Amino acid sequence: MQATIITIGDEILIGQIVDTNSVSIAKHLNQAGIVVREKCSIGDTAEAIREGVLRAMQSSQVVILTGGLGPTKDDITKHTLAALFHSTMRYDEAVAIHVEQMLTARGIEFNELNRSQAEVPSCCTVLHNAHGTAPGMWFEEQGCVVISLPGVPFEMEHLMQDEVMPRLKAHFALRQIVHRTLITAGLAESILAKRIEAWEEALPDYLKLAYLPSAGIVRLRLSAYEVEGARVAEEIAAQFAALQQLIPDYVVGFETATVEEQVHQWLIERGETLAVTESCTGGKIASKFTAMAGASAYFLAGLTTYSNEAKTALLGVDPATIATHGAVSEETARAMAEGARRVTGANYAVATTGIAGPTGGSPEKPVGTVWFAVATPEKTVAARHLCGTDRGQVIDRATAYAIRMLRDEMKR
Amino acid sequence: MQATIITIGDEILIGQIVDTNSVSIAKHLNQAGIVVREKCSIGDTAEAIREGVLRAMQSSQVVILTGGLGPTKDDITKHTLAALFHSTMRYDEAVAIHVEQMLTARGIEFNELNRSQAEVPSCCTVLHNAHGTAPGMWFEEQGCVVISLPGVPFEMEHLMQDEVMPRLKAHFALRQIVHRTLITAGLAESILAKRIEAWEEALPDYLKLAYLPSAGIVRLRLSAYEVEGARVAEEIAAQFAALQQLIPDYVVGFETATVEEQVHQWLIERGETLAVTESCTGGKIASKFTAMAGASAYFLAGLTTYSNEAKTALLGVDPATIATHGAVSEETARAMAEGARRVTGANYAVATTGIAGPTGGSPEKPVGTVWFAVATPEKTVAARHLCGTDRGQVIDRATAYAIRMLRDEMKR
Repeated sequence: MQATIITIGDEILIGQIVDTNSVSIAKHLNQAGIVVREKCSIGDTAEAIREGVLRAMQSSQVVILTGGLGPTKDDITKHTLAALFHSTMRYDEAVAIHVEQMLTARGIEFNELNRSQAEVPSCCTVLHNAHGTAPGMWFEEQGCVVISLPGVPFEMEHLMQDEVMPRLKAHFALRQIVHRTLITAGLAESILAKRIEAWEEALPDYLKLAYLPSAGIVRLRLSAYEVEGARVAEEIAAQFAALQQLIPDYVVGFETATVEEQVHQWLIERGETLAVTESCTGGKIASKFTAMAGASAYFLAGLTTYSNEAKTALLGVDPATIATHGAVSEETARAMAEGARRVTGANYAVATTGIAGPTGGSPEKPVGTVWFAVATPEKTVAARHLCGTDRGQVIDRATAYAIRMLRDEMKR
Repeated sequence: MQATIITIGDEILIGQIVDTNSVSIAKHLNQAGIVVREKCSIGDTAEAIREGVLRAMQSSQVVILTGGLGPTKDDITKHTLAALFHSTMRYDEAVAIHVEQMLTARGIEFNELNRSQAEVPSCCTVLHNAHGTAPGMWFEEQGCVVISLPGVPFEMEHLMQDEVMPRLKAHFALRQIVHRTLITAGLAESILAKRIEAWEEALPDYLKLAYLPSAGIVRLRLSAYEVEGARVAEEIAAQFAALQQLIPDYVVGFETATVEEQVHQWLIERGETLAVTESCTGGKIASKFTAMAGASAYFLAGLTTYSNEAKTALLGVDPATIATHGAVSEETARAMAEGARRVTGANYAVATTGIAGPTGGSPEKPVGTVWFAVATPEKTVAARHLCGTDRGQVIDRATAYAIRMLRDEMKR
């Protein structure tokens, strides 16, 4: 069973937005055993939509479109699909009532533009959009199912989950797709590939291996398409177990595991606590931990001490330390980490202080220079790294490095 | 001049990664006056790559591919393009030397997998990848330019900027594309559309208007394709000036302006300072401000006081306030904001305290309940909002709301 995802909107083609809708749709389809053959983004013209849908219907039995369903003039998906499938429009009373109720609850007037959202092609089945005003639509044409969803991510997601997936599962007899990902850290892609070469060669043919490198991390994914899921999942588990024997020190975890999740898990298991103090990373490390459900069990406080005065007032960093060594120095990083442990009573504290740029660099301390410190009940360790030249990149790399350093200290 | 962008990789089709490469490529092409006709994501098979490139060449004179250029077995773009264009492979000595130097600097052994990265189709021009080991490639075939770039975002970005765009500008006589976006906050899309209906009707034909709604914000974009840029930019400026007269209180700014940028600008201009104290938003508000260059001029400190003890120790919140009213209460939010102003000496402080979930909710204070406070030199204001049911959504909405509330207080 093959599918094509089509996202509609000039904002995608001009690079004004990042398309996350197709990511979420692809996940849903894969989980149900539907192979996504292609993803396409096209502009807001009737011609592009027509051409895109017709082409997709040649190779895919499922075509999912998002976007172009709003109340304004630039939204043309609905009428284009009606014309393509030679359908008239009808006024759906249930949709009209729902839209009016939603708007009234938000204190917004129900005007003729909203009323037009209740017009749908006569040939489609309406998919109820509980969280928005544009209904989803389900068409069955020439052996294909064509589904049109609103582009607002939140509304689209609920429609996929509550309306589209149950119907697709009922409509088609689906087999399974299995993807499993093992995450490694610390080995370059080419070195890792050589190290596991014999293992890779011996993989059964129906398992496809992919390498996904990113900063400091290489993810290895094994995929099998349209198979008996349970048996294949067992085979993959056995293959990954063998792989872990080959590179025991470099495996971080599975699937979407991150280093912060590992630290999160360890802290909860051990009943220990964490404080974070940040300068150049500006709250990013704290937000990584606090984004995870259950963080309140161990996360005591995050102190973004951007100014020197705040470092002193909040963490008790000696002004003389900053004056002598600078705010970006081993001594300040250590004093910050130790200060954060002291004022919060946490078992562990991690500190960053650096120059995120674009200004503030010097020949001895160029933009990207970051000092890190981790204070534990036993000791405080510090390290310095160059984290790049772009402000966003410096913040992201320093955040990742600080969390890895904390993990390494917790491991010992 | 039309272009198609093709991103290659099963990880995109299964929803494992968000494709940001095509966003950045689309921006570059639009800036240079090249219209992106379509973006496509396809799998790691020779057949999909062949078919995708041939189809793109039928409608576009520029085809840009990313991905599939790594050293491992799942990377097949290079050989597929060589076969498609009936070319042999050659060993590029300069690439080999560059790869070896890069790896040696990182302490990584130069093995045969890396050596294979220096093999390129004889018919292409090599584009130097200063930041990575996979070279870019430029093909000229049947009146089209086909460009293959590595999938690592950072490497791709540098290649686009330093190698691809200068060559495209030299190769083609390009006209201009103009996009301008005005950002509104506080009016629902349908209400806004009615309010500006007459203005929209009177727009010249060559200006295309798009509505881009997202949480609390509607962006209005005017676009003109392949025109005389300077004259059109003037026309758009005049149109937007007229529009601002119609909805003066609802315009936040232009292009990618965000509410935090407006606050950032105001704080710098006024020479005032800011402190942030967060509970449920967990450092996200601080990271929004500190992500902007120049934040150190006003951002004194961010205090993520997750535990009750931290609220007391760091901000001086009276334990009795928390005991009587709860950590998620108007009283605690106010005490946090005032405490943050006091300990940091900032002019403004903004505070959040809420229940991000998934646990911790109760009938009176369900998951998503967030109290906000802003303390200014004159007064402290507080407000309560329900920010949704999903942890990530609660954090994002509460972050946005807190920054808007700060803006509104600064405006007065």
